[in-house]
Amino acid sequence: MRMSLTEQILEGNVRAAARLMRDIDDDVAEAWEELKKLYPHTGRAYVIGITGPPGSGKSTLVDRMVEIYRKEGKTVGIVAVDPTSPFTGGAILGDRMRMQRHSTDEGVFIRSLATRGYLGGISRSTHDVIHVMDAMGKDIIIVETVGVGQDEVDIVDTAHTSVVVTVPGLGDEIQIIKAGILEIADIFVINKCEREGTERLEQELRTLMEMAPARQDGWSTPVFKTEATLGKGIFDLVYGVSKHQNRLIESKTLQAKNRLRAKKHFLKLLQNRLLERILDRIEGGTTLDEMLQKLANREANPYAMVEEIMREHLKNNARRDHGRT
Amino acid sequence: MRMSLTEQILEGNVRAAARLMRDIDDDVAEAWEELKKLYPHTGRAYVIGITGPPGSGKSTLVDRMVEIYRKEGKTVGIVAVDPTSPFTGGAILGDRMRMQRHSTDEGVFIRSLATRGYLGGISRSTHDVIHVMDAMGKDIIIVETVGVGQDEVDIVDTAHTSVVVTVPGLGDEIQIIKAGILEIADIFVINKCEREGTERLEQELRTLMEMAPARQDGWSTPVFKTEATLGKGIFDLVYGVSKHQNRLIESKTLQAKNRLRAKKHFLKLLQNRLLERILDRIEGGTTLDEMLQKLANREANPYAMVEEIMREHLKNNARRDHGRT
Repeated sequence: MRMSLTEQILEGNVRAAARLMRDIDDDVAEAWEELKKLYPHTGRAYVIGITGPPGSGKSTLVDRMVEIYRKEGKTVGIVAVDPTSPFTGGAILGDRMRMQRHSTDEGVFIRSLATRGYLGGISRSTHDVIHVMDAMGKDIIIVETVGVGQDEVDIVDTAHTSVVVTVPGLGDEIQIIKAGILEIADIFVINKCEREGTERLEQELRTLMEMAPARQDGWSTPVFKTEATLGKGIFDLVYGVSKHQNRLIESKTLQAKNRLRAKKHFLKLLQNRLLERILDRIEGGTTLDEMLQKLANREANPYAMVEEIMREHLKNNARRDHGRT
Repeated sequence: MRMSLTEQILEGNVRAAARLMRDIDDDVAEAWEELKKLYPHTGRAYVIGITGPPGSGKSTLVDRMVEIYRKEGKTVGIVAVDPTSPFTGGAILGDRMRMQRHSTDEGVFIRSLATRGYLGGISRSTHDVIHVMDAMGKDIIIVETVGVGQDEVDIVDTAHTSVVVTVPGLGDEIQIIKAGILEIADIFVINKCEREGTERLEQELRTLMEMAPARQDGWSTPVFKTEATLGKGIFDLVYGVSKHQNRLIESKTLQAKNRLRAKKHFLKLLQNRLLERILDRIEGGTTLDEMLQKLANREANPYAMVEEIMREHLKNNARRDHGRT
């Protein structure tokens, strides 16, 4: 008898996992059911988030980290969140361009996700893809995002350990750090550390960290200097991640992290699903288009319209008044 | 008799507008009602979006553009979307630091918005704040965002004219451009054009544009070189924006742009409001916390939970079966 997709994925079948991920990307209805079946088998992987500006060498850094994890016998999943290019019609840096050295290693699973759509879909599918890799049995999952955007920061923020990569010489370096990612860093990396300006950048980072309020878990964010293309400083970084993991466990903040992860995923799921369902209902024929034209012409009012939709589609009950089905 | 907040804002009262914007930020219930009353009075302003990496001199550029618009007798609203700093507890670059030269000019209204929360709140409040400025009678509204994030790109994408700013010497320049913002540019600006590398960057941008498919409106994205601190090249840029505006009108794509703007705003409103309402209902006491703990422990399933919530709170009807109330 043929195994179900879920069973195949639980056995680590790469083709089955890739198929489900494509279905997640395409928002196929069956993907939801598979994810529901996989969820109870997740929660074992350790998730590392890596973010930094374009050109900071994140991919090379990840490549080098994977090398060390593989030598330790750990399996690795990589989720690379790329902005979509309209010219190529896909993610800018496809799976093929990434980490070619590991492409024949069955212990490494790489998946690129394109940021498209404008309904917060990327954070949701990133969570979903992490769950698939988790269910496959990957020990380590690395999520890599570009940039300082809110969505991108959110993705990395839900990792167990968040690594913020920067490089010297990006003009006003510290501005780039300040721009929304400082708060989420568990570890700083100055990559391309043989460039001029490394010491100044390091000094600036340390000064910033001194200004920061003490963290509940007692962790003080270290700064690692790496030269990823040469493989320099990578072992220290990997060791730093593992020290942070230990701290999370010792300080009992791992639980809180996991609750935060669950919360963000749940809210995204709920938000997306609610909107999809409601839009399905009002989107009979050209209704939505007509509505939008009226909105653009100021013949209709979006605030009033939202109220009307909620009156029409939400039950008029409070939870305690109704039993669950 | 005292005028209502809406009436005051329609008369251009700055204090009234600032109060409503604070209420929008704090998500006060009354803000919704005021926005509903203001909406029919919007749709007159021309919205310009400006995005680019940190340190590219966007604020100075905006400052210079405002100078020209003011000389033409136009009133201007500025919405600056800043990543939140956890250390200062607010937007990194506050209103006070921005465009001090215009701070005493009543024809210029400046508002910083912090990107906080993770439910797509920033795009929604940006739309709302634009509507307030529009209702105040501002002729031009400039929305400025940092970075390449999806949310930030979305915000700028809903402008009538989107300006993408870059600077030479940011390492691998073209990567920064490629990262998700190329597609939205109606105009490119190379700021700090006296720096080395300007010609190469310009050449790269032009090559990229040649690779791009022709646009429906027949517009080909120009590249302007500016030195904002010296005020160089700004007039050409402002003239370029106005040429793009004319093209939108002539090619009848302004309508389509406005429909897209209305759509994104409406979907964000609906999405946020639905989630808020549903969370209000299930958040009696510690219910949500308990649920999240169970999710983190894998004792509950988020996919099943979302289905249950929808069964419980969504009416079981299709639209055509029910009259509107």
